[in-house]
Amino acid sequence: MHAAAATVPSCWDRAVSYGDGVFESVLVIEGIAPLWAFHRLRLQKSIQRLGIHCDIAELEKSFWLQAQQNSSAVIKIILARSGGARGYDARPAQDYTVQVKAYPLPHFSSGRIMEGVRLHVCQQRLSHNPAIAGMKHLNRLEQVIAASERPPGWADEGLMLDITGAVIECTSSNIFILRENILVTPRLDHCGVDGVMRAVIMESIAADIPLPVQEARLTLAEIFAADAVFICNSVFGVWPVCSIGVSQIKVQHAITGKIWQRLNAMGYARIYG
Amino acid sequence: MHAAAATVPSCWDRAVSYGDGVFESVLVIEGIAPLWAFHRLRLQKSIQRLGIHCDIAELEKSFWLQAQQNSSAVIKIILARSGGARGYDARPAQDYTVQVKAYPLPHFSSGRIMEGVRLHVCQQRLSHNPAIAGMKHLNRLEQVIAASERPPGWADEGLMLDITGAVIECTSSNIFILRENILVTPRLDHCGVDGVMRAVIMESIAADIPLPVQEARLTLAEIFAADAVFICNSVFGVWPVCSIGVSQIKVQHAITGKIWQRLNAMGYARIYG
Repeated sequence: MHAAAATVPSCWDRAVSYGDGVFESVLVIEGIAPLWAFHRLRLQKSIQRLGIHCDIAELEKSFWLQAQQNSSAVIKIILARSGGARGYDARPAQDYTVQVKAYPLPHFSSGRIMEGVRLHVCQQRLSHNPAIAGMKHLNRLEQVIAASERPPGWADEGLMLDITGAVIECTSSNIFILRENILVTPRLDHCGVDGVMRAVIMESIAADIPLPVQEARLTLAEIFAADAVFICNSVFGVWPVCSIGVSQIKVQHAITGKIWQRLNAMGYARIYG
Repeated sequence: MHAAAATVPSCWDRAVSYGDGVFESVLVIEGIAPLWAFHRLRLQKSIQRLGIHCDIAELEKSFWLQAQQNSSAVIKIILARSGGARGYDARPAQDYTVQVKAYPLPHFSSGRIMEGVRLHVCQQRLSHNPAIAGMKHLNRLEQVIAASERPPGWADEGLMLDITGAVIECTSSNIFILRENILVTPRLDHCGVDGVMRAVIMESIAADIPLPVQEARLTLAEIFAADAVFICNSVFGVWPVCSIGVSQIKVQHAITGKIWQRLNAMGYARIYG
Protein backbone atom coordinates (compact mmCIF):
# COMPACT_ATOMS: atom_id res chain seq x y z
CA MET A 1 0.00 0.00 0.00
CA HIS A 2 1.22 3.43 -0.92
CA ALA A 3 -0.06 6.31 1.12
CA ALA A 4 0.97 9.91 0.88
CA ALA A 5 0.14 12.35 3.65
CA ALA A 6 0.00 15.70 1.91
CA THR A 7 -1.57 19.04 2.66
CA VAL A 8 -4.12 20.30 0.14
CA PRO A 9 -2.96 23.74 -1.12
CA SER A 10 -5.58 26.16 0.16
CA CYS A 11 -6.34 27.45 -3.35
CA TRP A 12 -7.48 23.90 -4.28
CA ASP A 13 -9.38 23.33 -1.04
CA ARG A 14 -12.88 23.73 -2.50
CA ALA A 15 -11.96 21.67 -5.56
CA VAL A 16 -10.78 18.77 -3.36
CA SER A 17 -13.48 19.08 -0.69
CA TYR A 18 -16.51 19.72 -2.87
CA GLY A 19 -15.57 19.48 -6.54
CA ASP A 20 -16.56 23.15 -6.77
CA GLY A 21 -15.34 23.84 -10.29
CA VAL A 22 -15.19 22.76 -13.92
CA PHE A 23 -12.69 21.41 -16.43
CA GLU A 24 -12.03 21.25 -20.17
CA SER A 25 -9.78 18.87 -22.12
CA VAL A 26 -8.74 20.67 -25.27
CA LEU A 27 -7.05 19.01 -28.24
CA VAL A 28 -4.17 21.01 -29.68
CA ILE A 29 -2.67 19.84 -32.99
CA GLU A 30 0.39 21.62 -34.34
CA GLY A 31 -0.38 24.71 -32.34
CA ILE A 32 -4.01 24.84 -33.43
CA ALA A 33 -6.94 24.14 -31.10
CA PRO A 34 -9.69 23.62 -33.69
CA LEU A 35 -12.53 23.53 -31.13
CA TRP A 36 -11.29 26.18 -28.72
CA ALA A 37 -14.22 28.51 -29.38
CA PHE A 38 -16.65 25.78 -28.27
CA HIS A 39 -14.61 24.94 -25.14
CA ARG A 40 -14.41 28.62 -24.26
CA LEU A 41 -18.17 29.04 -24.61
CA ARG A 42 -18.96 26.00 -22.45
CA LEU A 43 -16.49 27.15 -19.80
CA GLN A 44 -18.07 30.58 -19.75
CA LYS A 45 -21.62 29.18 -19.45
CA SER A 46 -20.60 26.75 -16.71
CA ILE A 47 -18.88 29.22 -14.42
CA GLN A 48 -21.82 31.57 -14.86
CA ARG A 49 -24.12 28.78 -13.61
CA LEU A 50 -21.80 28.10 -10.66
CA GLY A 51 -21.41 31.79 -9.87
CA ILE A 52 -17.64 31.90 -10.29
CA HIS A 53 -16.49 35.24 -11.70
CA CYS A 54 -13.46 34.38 -13.78
CA ASP A 55 -11.58 36.54 -16.25
CA ILE A 56 -11.81 34.28 -19.30
CA ALA A 57 -9.47 36.52 -21.34
CA GLU A 58 -6.71 35.94 -18.74
CA LEU A 59 -7.36 32.21 -18.76
CA GLU A 60 -7.26 32.22 -22.55
CA LYS A 61 -3.78 33.76 -22.48
CA SER A 62 -2.54 30.93 -20.22
CA PHE A 63 -4.13 28.42 -22.57
CA TRP A 64 -2.43 29.79 -25.69
CA LEU A 65 0.88 30.01 -23.86
CA GLN A 66 0.65 26.28 -23.08
CA ALA A 67 -0.45 25.58 -26.65
CA GLN A 68 2.67 27.35 -27.95
CA GLN A 69 4.93 25.37 -25.62
CA ASN A 70 3.22 22.04 -26.41
CA SER A 71 2.23 22.30 -30.01
CA SER A 72 0.49 18.89 -30.02
CA ALA A 73 -1.15 17.91 -26.74
CA VAL A 74 -4.36 17.61 -24.79
CA ILE A 75 -4.42 20.69 -22.62
CA LYS A 76 -6.55 20.24 -19.54
CA ILE A 77 -7.91 23.35 -17.89
CA ILE A 78 -9.23 23.09 -14.34
CA LEU A 79 -11.01 26.13 -12.96
CA ALA A 80 -12.18 25.93 -9.35
CA ARG A 81 -13.55 28.27 -6.76
CA SER A 82 -10.98 28.89 -4.03
CA GLY A 83 -11.26 30.07 -0.43
CA GLY A 84 -9.92 27.98 2.41
CA ALA A 85 -12.66 28.32 5.08
CA ARG A 86 -14.46 25.13 6.11
CA GLY A 87 -18.11 24.94 5.00
CA TYR A 88 -20.19 24.72 1.86
CA ASP A 89 -21.28 28.35 1.95
CA ALA A 90 -17.83 29.90 2.52
CA ARG A 91 -17.59 30.63 -1.19
CA PRO A 92 -16.19 33.97 -2.25
CA ALA A 93 -17.44 34.56 -5.80
CA GLN A 94 -14.29 36.51 -6.65
CA ASP A 95 -11.66 33.90 -5.84
CA TYR A 96 -10.75 31.12 -8.16
CA THR A 97 -7.79 28.98 -9.11
CA VAL A 98 -6.74 27.78 -12.53
CA GLN A 99 -4.50 24.99 -13.74
CA VAL A 100 -3.63 24.79 -17.44
CA LYS A 101 -1.62 21.63 -17.99
CA ALA A 102 -0.47 19.79 -21.12
CA TYR A 103 -0.81 16.00 -21.43
CA PRO A 104 0.68 13.92 -24.26
CA LEU A 105 -1.40 13.58 -27.40
CA PRO A 106 -3.14 10.19 -27.29
CA HIS A 107 -2.82 7.75 -30.18
CA PHE A 108 -5.61 5.47 -31.30
CA SER A 109 -5.73 2.66 -33.83
CA SER A 110 -7.47 3.63 -37.07
CA GLY A 111 -9.40 0.36 -36.58
CA ARG A 112 -11.62 2.31 -34.22
CA ILE A 113 -12.74 4.46 -37.14
CA MET A 114 -12.83 1.67 -39.73
CA GLU A 115 -14.25 -1.30 -37.79
CA GLY A 116 -15.97 0.65 -35.03
CA VAL A 117 -15.91 0.33 -31.25
CA ARG A 118 -17.58 -2.03 -28.81
CA LEU A 119 -19.72 -0.65 -26.00
CA HIS A 120 -20.90 -2.36 -22.83
CA VAL A 121 -23.87 -1.12 -20.82
CA CYS A 122 -22.78 0.19 -17.39
CA GLN A 123 -24.60 -0.85 -14.22
CA GLN A 124 -23.89 2.59 -12.77
CA ARG A 125 -26.67 5.02 -13.70
CA LEU A 126 -26.57 8.78 -14.11
CA SER A 127 -28.57 10.64 -11.49
CA HIS A 128 -30.85 13.57 -12.32
CA ASN A 129 -29.59 16.99 -11.37
CA PRO A 130 -30.89 19.73 -13.70
CA ALA A 131 -28.91 22.46 -11.90
CA ILE A 132 -25.58 21.02 -13.05
CA ALA A 133 -26.68 18.88 -16.03
CA GLY A 134 -24.59 19.42 -19.16
CA MET A 135 -21.66 20.93 -17.26
CA LYS A 136 -18.19 19.37 -17.20
CA HIS A 137 -17.96 19.91 -13.42
CA LEU A 138 -15.59 18.23 -10.99
CA ASN A 139 -18.18 15.86 -9.40
CA ARG A 140 -17.39 12.75 -11.43
CA LEU A 141 -17.75 9.77 -9.10
CA GLU A 142 -20.50 8.32 -11.31
CA GLN A 143 -18.06 8.21 -14.25
CA VAL A 144 -15.27 6.82 -12.07
CA ILE A 145 -17.51 3.97 -10.90
CA ALA A 146 -18.86 3.38 -14.40
CA ALA A 147 -15.36 3.32 -15.94
CA SER A 148 -14.26 0.77 -13.33
CA GLU A 149 -16.92 -1.63 -14.63
CA ARG A 150 -15.35 -1.92 -18.09
CA PRO A 151 -14.75 -5.60 -18.91
CA PRO A 152 -11.10 -5.65 -19.98
CA GLY A 153 -10.46 -6.89 -23.51
CA TRP A 154 -13.82 -6.69 -25.15
CA ALA A 155 -15.27 -3.24 -24.52
CA ASP A 156 -13.89 0.14 -25.58
CA GLU A 157 -16.38 2.44 -23.87
CA GLY A 158 -19.22 2.15 -21.34
CA LEU A 159 -22.73 3.24 -22.30
CA MET A 160 -24.55 4.99 -19.47
CA LEU A 161 -28.28 5.14 -18.82
CA ASP A 162 -29.97 7.52 -16.41
CA ILE A 163 -32.03 6.41 -13.40
CA THR A 164 -35.16 6.20 -15.58
CA GLY A 165 -33.43 3.90 -18.09
CA ALA A 166 -32.91 6.47 -20.85
CA VAL A 167 -29.62 6.30 -22.74
CA ILE A 168 -27.57 9.45 -22.04
CA GLU A 169 -23.92 9.12 -23.10
CA CYS A 170 -20.78 7.02 -22.73
CA THR A 171 -18.39 7.44 -19.82
CA SER A 172 -16.19 9.83 -21.84
CA SER A 173 -18.18 10.59 -24.97
CA ASN A 174 -21.60 11.48 -26.39
CA ILE A 175 -23.74 9.26 -28.59
CA PHE A 176 -25.73 9.84 -31.80
CA ILE A 177 -27.97 7.58 -33.81
CA LEU A 178 -29.25 7.85 -37.36
CA ARG A 179 -33.00 7.20 -37.56
CA GLU A 180 -35.15 7.84 -40.63
CA ASN A 181 -32.45 10.16 -42.00
CA ILE A 182 -32.39 12.27 -38.86
CA LEU A 183 -29.43 12.47 -36.47
CA VAL A 184 -30.77 11.98 -32.95
CA THR A 185 -28.83 12.43 -29.70
CA PRO A 186 -30.06 12.15 -26.09
CA ARG A 187 -31.42 15.23 -24.35
CA LEU A 188 -29.12 16.41 -21.55
CA ASP A 189 -31.50 18.50 -19.45
CA HIS A 190 -31.37 16.15 -16.44
CA CYS A 191 -27.85 14.71 -16.62
CA GLY A 192 -24.91 14.12 -18.92
CA VAL A 193 -22.11 16.25 -20.32
CA ASP A 194 -22.87 18.67 -23.13
CA GLY A 195 -19.80 17.61 -25.11
CA VAL A 196 -17.93 19.96 -27.36
CA MET A 197 -17.82 17.53 -30.32
CA ARG A 198 -21.55 16.93 -29.85
CA ALA A 199 -22.10 20.69 -30.13
CA VAL A 200 -19.89 20.94 -33.23
CA ILE A 201 -21.84 18.14 -34.93
CA MET A 202 -25.23 19.58 -33.98
CA GLU A 203 -24.47 23.21 -34.73
CA SER A 204 -22.17 22.93 -37.70
CA ILE A 205 -21.34 19.54 -39.24
CA ALA A 206 -24.91 18.15 -39.45
CA ALA A 207 -25.94 21.00 -41.73
CA ASP A 208 -22.99 20.23 -44.03
CA ILE A 209 -23.80 16.52 -44.43
CA PRO A 210 -26.69 17.65 -44.74
CA LEU A 211 -28.93 16.03 -42.12
CA PRO A 212 -31.45 17.41 -39.66
CA VAL A 213 -30.51 16.83 -36.02
CA GLN A 214 -32.68 16.58 -32.93
CA GLU A 215 -32.46 15.83 -29.21
CA ALA A 216 -34.80 13.21 -27.80
CA ARG A 217 -35.28 10.71 -24.98
CA LEU A 218 -33.74 7.49 -26.33
CA THR A 219 -34.11 3.99 -24.93
CA LEU A 220 -31.67 1.12 -25.45
CA ALA A 221 -34.24 -0.51 -27.75
CA GLU A 222 -34.24 2.61 -29.95
CA ILE A 223 -30.43 2.54 -30.09
CA PHE A 224 -30.52 -1.10 -31.22
CA ALA A 225 -33.15 -0.29 -33.86
CA ALA A 226 -31.14 2.64 -35.30
CA ASP A 227 -29.72 2.70 -38.83
CA ALA A 228 -26.31 3.72 -37.43
CA VAL A 229 -24.79 4.51 -34.04
CA PHE A 230 -21.68 6.56 -33.34
CA ILE A 231 -19.96 8.16 -30.38
CA CYS A 232 -17.84 11.31 -30.27
CA ASN A 233 -15.65 13.51 -28.14
CA SER A 234 -13.34 16.43 -28.74
CA VAL A 235 -10.17 14.33 -28.41
CA PHE A 236 -10.79 11.20 -30.51
CA GLY A 237 -13.31 12.67 -32.94
CA VAL A 238 -16.02 10.23 -34.05
CA TRP A 239 -16.14 6.43 -33.80
CA PRO A 240 -18.89 4.23 -35.28
CA VAL A 241 -20.28 1.64 -32.84
CA CYS A 242 -20.05 -2.00 -33.97
CA SER A 243 -21.55 -3.68 -30.89
CA ILE A 244 -23.34 -3.03 -27.62
CA GLY A 245 -22.89 -5.91 -25.22
CA VAL A 246 -23.50 -9.10 -27.22
CA SER A 247 -25.56 -7.32 -29.87
CA GLN A 248 -23.89 -6.45 -33.16
CA ILE A 249 -24.55 -3.06 -34.73
CA LYS A 250 -24.06 -2.60 -38.47
CA VAL A 251 -21.23 -0.14 -39.07
CA GLN A 252 -21.97 2.14 -42.00
CA HIS A 253 -19.53 4.86 -42.88
CA ALA A 254 -21.91 7.09 -44.84
CA ILE A 255 -22.35 9.53 -41.94
CA THR A 256 -19.15 9.12 -39.92
CA GLY A 257 -17.13 9.30 -43.17
CA LYS A 258 -18.59 12.72 -43.91
CA ILE A 259 -17.88 13.88 -40.37
CA TRP A 260 -14.30 12.60 -40.74
CA GLN A 261 -13.83 14.72 -43.86
CA ARG A 262 -14.41 17.75 -41.65
CA LEU A 263 -12.32 16.42 -38.77
CA ASN A 264 -9.39 15.55 -41.02
CA ALA A 265 -9.39 19.10 -42.28
CA MET A 266 -8.96 20.12 -38.63
CA GLY A 267 -5.91 17.88 -38.21
CA TYR A 268 -7.53 14.98 -36.31
CA ALA A 269 -5.74 12.38 -38.47
CA ARG A 270 -2.61 13.14 -36.43
CA ILE A 271 -3.88 11.10 -33.46
CA TYR A 272 -4.38 7.89 -35.49
CA GLY A 273 -1.51 5.66 -36.51
CA MET B 1 -10.92 39.49 -9.27
CA HIS B 2 -8.40 37.28 -7.57
CA ALA B 3 -7.05 34.41 -9.61
CA ALA B 4 -4.32 32.01 -8.67
CA ALA B 5 -2.62 29.86 -11.28
CA ALA B 6 -1.43 26.85 -9.34
CA THR B 7 -0.47 23.31 -10.19
CA VAL B 8 -2.52 20.54 -8.57
CA PRO B 9 -0.13 18.26 -6.63
CA SER B 10 -0.30 14.93 -8.45
CA CYS B 11 -1.34 13.07 -5.28
CA TRP B 12 -4.50 15.22 -5.18
CA ASP B 13 -5.16 14.96 -8.90
CA ARG B 14 -8.06 12.50 -8.68
CA ALA B 15 -9.57 14.38 -5.75
CA VAL B 16 -9.57 17.65 -7.70
CA SER B 17 -10.52 16.15 -11.07
CA TYR B 18 -13.19 13.68 -9.98
CA GLY B 19 -13.86 14.00 -6.23
CA ASP B 20 -12.61 10.42 -5.98
CA GLY B 21 -12.48 10.16 -2.19
CA VAL B 22 -14.20 10.75 1.13
CA PHE B 23 -13.93 12.99 4.17
CA GLU B 24 -14.80 13.10 7.87
CA SER B 25 -15.11 16.11 10.19
CA VAL B 26 -14.34 14.89 13.69
CA LEU B 27 -15.03 16.88 16.86
CA VAL B 28 -12.20 16.73 19.40
CA ILE B 29 -12.85 18.19 22.85
CA GLU B 30 -9.99 18.32 25.35
CA GLY B 31 -8.15 15.57 23.57
CA ILE B 32 -11.18 13.29 23.37
CA ALA B 33 -12.99 12.45 20.12
CA PRO B 34 -16.22 11.02 21.58
CA LEU B 35 -17.56 9.77 18.21
CA TRP B 36 -14.29 8.58 16.66
CA ALA B 37 -15.40 4.94 16.55
CA PHE B 38 -18.41 5.92 14.41
CA HIS B 39 -16.31 8.09 12.07
CA ARG B 40 -13.76 5.29 11.70
CA LEU B 41 -16.49 2.78 10.83
CA ARG B 42 -18.08 5.05 8.21
CA LEU B 43 -14.67 5.80 6.69
CA GLN B 44 -13.91 2.10 6.48
CA LYS B 45 -17.28 1.27 4.87
CA SER B 46 -16.95 4.14 2.37
CA ILE B 47 -13.49 3.33 1.07
CA GLN B 48 -14.51 -0.30 0.73
CA ARG B 49 -17.41 0.81 -1.48
CA LEU B 50 -15.06 3.01 -3.54
CA GLY B 51 -12.42 0.27 -3.75
CA ILE B 52 -9.64 2.28 -2.07
CA HIS B 53 -7.35 0.05 0.00
CA CYS B 54 -6.26 2.26 2.86
CA ASP B 55 -4.45 1.28 6.03
CA ILE B 56 -6.94 2.67 8.57
CA ALA B 57 -4.60 1.96 11.50
CA GLU B 58 -1.97 4.26 9.93
CA LEU B 59 -4.59 6.93 9.32
CA GLU B 60 -5.78 6.58 12.91
CA LYS B 61 -2.26 7.31 14.19
CA SER B 62 -2.17 10.55 12.17
CA PHE B 63 -5.58 11.45 13.55
CA TRP B 64 -4.58 10.96 17.20
CA LEU B 65 -1.34 12.86 16.63
CA GLN B 66 -3.38 15.84 15.40
CA ALA B 67 -5.79 15.43 18.31
CA GLN B 68 -2.88 15.60 20.78
CA GLN B 69 -1.51 18.73 19.13
CA ASN B 70 -4.94 20.41 18.92
CA SER B 71 -6.77 19.27 22.00
CA SER B 72 -10.00 21.06 21.03
CA ALA B 73 -10.69 21.27 17.32
CA VAL B 74 -12.62 19.93 14.38
CA ILE B 75 -10.20 17.59 12.66
CA LYS B 76 -11.02 17.11 9.03
CA ILE B 77 -9.73 13.97 7.37
CA ILE B 78 -9.66 13.81 3.56
CA LEU B 79 -8.82 10.46 2.01
CA ALA B 80 -8.60 10.35 -1.79
CA ARG B 81 -7.43 7.95 -4.43
CA SER B 82 -4.23 9.18 -6.05
CA GLY B 83 -2.57 8.47 -9.38
CA GLY B 84 -1.81 11.25 -11.82
CA ALA B 85 -2.75 9.73 -15.18
CA ARG B 86 -5.58 11.40 -17.10
CA GLY B 87 -8.79 9.37 -17.33
CA TYR B 88 -11.54 8.03 -15.10
CA ASP B 89 -10.27 4.46 -15.13
CA ALA B 90 -6.60 5.21 -14.36
CA ARG B 91 -7.26 4.33 -10.73
CA PRO B 92 -4.66 2.29 -8.90
CA ALA B 93 -6.46 0.72 -5.94
CA GLN B 94 -3.31 0.81 -3.86
CA ASP B 95 -2.50 4.51 -4.02
CA TYR B 96 -4.20 7.06 -1.84
CA THR B 97 -3.49 10.37 -0.21
CA VAL B 98 -4.52 11.57 3.21
CA GLN B 99 -4.85 15.00 4.79
CA VAL B 100 -5.55 15.26 8.52
CA LYS B 101 -6.00 18.91 9.38
CA ALA B 102 -7.23 20.73 12.48
CA TYR B 103 -9.72 23.59 12.25
CA PRO B 104 -10.72 25.84 15.16
CA LEU B 105 -13.54 24.59 17.38
CA PRO B 106 -16.74 26.40 16.31
CA HIS B 107 -18.86 28.26 18.87
CA PHE B 108 -22.63 28.41 18.73
CA SER B 109 -25.16 30.38 20.74
CA SER B 110 -27.01 28.25 23.29
CA GLY B 111 -30.14 29.89 21.85
CA ARG B 112 -29.92 27.30 19.08
CA ILE B 113 -30.54 24.59 21.67
CA MET B 114 -33.06 26.53 23.76
CA GLU B 115 -35.15 28.36 21.16
CA GLY B 116 -34.40 26.11 18.21
CA VAL B 117 -33.27 26.80 14.67
CA ARG B 118 -35.02 28.04 11.55
CA LEU B 119 -34.92 26.02 8.35
CA HIS B 120 -35.71 27.07 4.82
CA VAL B 121 -36.56 24.61 2.07
CA CYS B 122 -33.85 24.52 -0.63
CA GLN B 123 -34.74 24.67 -4.32
CA GLN B 124 -31.77 22.43 -5.06
CA ARG B 125 -32.79 18.77 -4.87
CA LEU B 126 -30.73 15.70 -4.03
CA SER B 127 -30.30 13.32 -6.96
CA HIS B 128 -30.65 9.55 -6.62
CA ASN B 129 -27.44 7.56 -6.71
CA PRO B 130 -27.65 4.34 -4.67
CA ALA B 131 -23.99 3.43 -5.38
CA ILE B 132 -22.71 6.37 -3.35
CA ALA B 133 -25.76 7.17 -1.16
CA GLY B 134 -24.92 7.56 2.53
CA MET B 135 -21.23 8.22 1.88
CA LYS B 136 -19.49 11.45 2.81
CA HIS B 137 -17.74 11.56 -0.56
CA LEU B 138 -16.09 14.53 -2.24
CA ASN B 139 -18.83 15.18 -4.85
CA ARG B 140 -20.67 17.94 -3.03
CA LEU B 141 -21.86 20.42 -5.65
CA GLU B 142 -25.48 19.81 -4.66
CA GLN B 143 -24.70 20.96 -1.11
CA VAL B 144 -22.64 23.92 -2.37
CA ILE B 145 -25.56 25.11 -4.52
CA ALA B 146 -28.10 24.43 -1.76
CA ALA B 147 -26.01 26.30 0.84
CA SER B 148 -25.74 29.28 -1.51
CA GLU B 149 -29.54 29.61 -1.44
CA ARG B 150 -29.68 30.36 2.30
CA PRO B 151 -31.59 33.61 2.85
CA PRO B 152 -29.23 35.60 5.08
CA GLY B 153 -30.64 36.60 8.44
CA TRP B 154 -33.61 34.38 8.86
CA ALA B 155 -32.53 30.79 8.19
CA ASP B 156 -29.94 28.69 10.01
CA GLU B 157 -29.95 25.59 7.83
CA GLY B 158 -31.40 24.51 4.48
CA LEU B 159 -33.74 21.52 4.32
CA MET B 160 -33.17 19.37 1.25
CA LEU B 161 -35.67 17.20 -0.59
CA ASP B 162 -34.79 14.56 -3.15
CA ILE B 163 -35.93 14.62 -6.78
CA THR B 164 -39.16 12.79 -5.80
CA GLY B 165 -40.03 15.38 -3.14
CA ALA B 166 -39.08 13.27 -0.11
CA VAL B 167 -37.34 15.08 2.76
CA ILE B 168 -33.78 13.74 3.13
CA GLU B 169 -31.58 15.96 5.30
CA CYS B 170 -30.29 19.48 5.80
CA THR B 171 -27.26 20.84 3.91
CA SER B 172 -24.93 19.89 6.80
CA SER B 173 -27.06 17.80 9.14
CA ASN B 174 -29.61 14.99 9.42
CA ILE B 175 -33.22 15.36 10.51
CA PHE B 176 -35.46 13.41 12.91
CA ILE B 177 -39.10 13.79 13.80
CA LEU B 178 -41.12 12.46 16.72
CA ARG B 179 -44.37 10.85 15.59
CA GLU B 180 -46.65 8.78 17.81
CA ASN B 181 -43.77 8.27 20.24
CA ILE B 182 -41.46 6.91 17.55
CA LEU B 183 -38.34 8.67 16.33
CA VAL B 184 -38.43 8.70 12.54
CA THR B 185 -35.62 9.76 10.20
CA PRO B 186 -35.47 9.69 6.38
CA ARG B 187 -34.18 6.57 4.64
CA LEU B 188 -30.84 7.22 2.91
CA ASP B 189 -30.74 4.40 0.37
CA HIS B 190 -30.97 6.70 -2.66
CA CYS B 191 -29.19 9.84 -1.46
CA GLY B 192 -28.10 11.76 1.62
CA VAL B 193 -25.24 11.46 4.09
CA ASP B 194 -25.39 8.75 6.73
CA GLY B 195 -24.36 11.15 9.50
CA VAL B 196 -22.36 10.04 12.50
CA MET B 197 -24.65 11.76 15.04
CA ARG B 198 -27.64 10.21 13.29
CA ALA B 199 -26.03 6.78 13.77
CA VAL B 200 -25.27 7.50 17.44
CA ILE B 201 -28.89 8.50 18.07
CA MET B 202 -30.31 5.49 16.21
CA GLU B 203 -27.94 2.87 17.56
CA SER B 204 -27.36 4.11 21.08
CA ILE B 205 -29.16 7.18 22.43
CA ALA B 206 -32.71 6.26 21.28
CA ALA B 207 -32.65 3.11 23.39
CA ASP B 208 -31.63 5.16 26.45
CA ILE B 209 -34.48 7.68 26.13
CA PRO B 210 -36.12 5.08 25.57
CA LEU B 211 -37.83 5.44 22.19
CA PRO B 212 -38.13 3.15 19.18
CA VAL B 213 -36.54 4.55 16.03
CA GLN B 214 -37.27 3.86 12.39
CA GLU B 215 -36.28 4.98 8.90
CA ALA B 216 -39.04 5.97 6.48
CA ARG B 217 -39.86 8.03 3.44
CA LEU B 218 -40.99 11.39 4.85
CA THR B 219 -42.78 14.19 3.03
CA LEU B 220 -42.72 17.86 4.03
CA ALA B 221 -46.36 17.48 5.15
CA GLU B 222 -45.33 14.71 7.54
CA ILE B 223 -42.54 16.90 8.93
CA PHE B 224 -45.06 19.71 9.57
CA ALA B 225 -47.47 17.28 11.25
CA ALA B 226 -44.79 15.86 13.59
CA ASP B 227 -44.87 16.24 17.38
CA ALA B 228 -41.26 17.48 17.33
CA VAL B 229 -38.53 18.06 14.76
CA PHE B 230 -34.80 18.23 15.36
CA ILE B 231 -31.59 18.21 13.33
CA CYS B 232 -28.19 16.84 14.30
CA ASN B 233 -24.58 16.52 13.28
CA SER B 234 -21.38 15.38 14.93
CA VAL B 235 -20.06 18.91 15.46
CA PHE B 236 -23.02 20.90 16.87
CA GLY B 237 -24.89 18.00 18.47
CA VAL B 238 -28.68 18.36 18.33
CA TRP B 239 -30.86 21.41 17.63
CA PRO B 240 -34.65 21.49 17.84
CA VAL B 241 -36.34 23.09 14.82
CA CYS B 242 -38.63 26.07 15.54
CA SER B 243 -39.67 26.93 11.99
CA ILE B 244 -39.52 25.73 8.40
CA GLY B 245 -40.02 28.60 5.98
CA VAL B 246 -42.94 30.67 7.29
CA SER B 247 -44.39 27.74 9.30
CA GLN B 248 -43.76 27.63 13.04
CA ILE B 249 -42.85 24.30 14.65
CA LYS B 250 -43.50 23.82 18.36
CA VAL B 251 -40.16 23.34 20.14
CA GLN B 252 -40.42 20.75 22.85
CA HIS B 253 -37.35 19.81 24.82
CA ALA B 254 -38.53 16.42 26.09
CA ILE B 255 -36.49 14.49 23.51
CA THR B 256 -33.64 16.86 22.65
CA GLY B 257 -33.14 17.52 26.37
CA LYS B 258 -32.54 13.82 26.97
CA ILE B 259 -30.14 13.65 24.02
CA TRP B 260 -28.31 16.67 25.41
CA GLN B 261 -27.79 14.88 28.75
CA ARG B 262 -25.78 12.31 26.83
CA LEU B 263 -23.97 14.88 24.66
CA ASN B 264 -23.05 17.02 27.66
CA ALA B 265 -21.44 13.97 29.24
CA MET B 266 -19.31 13.78 26.07
CA GLY B 267 -18.16 17.40 26.45
CA TYR B 268 -20.37 19.03 23.80
CA ALA B 269 -21.23 21.93 26.14
CA ARG B 270 -17.76 23.32 25.37
CA ILE B 271 -18.85 24.56 21.94
CA TYR B 272 -21.72 26.70 23.32
CA GLY B 273 -21.17 30.03 25.02
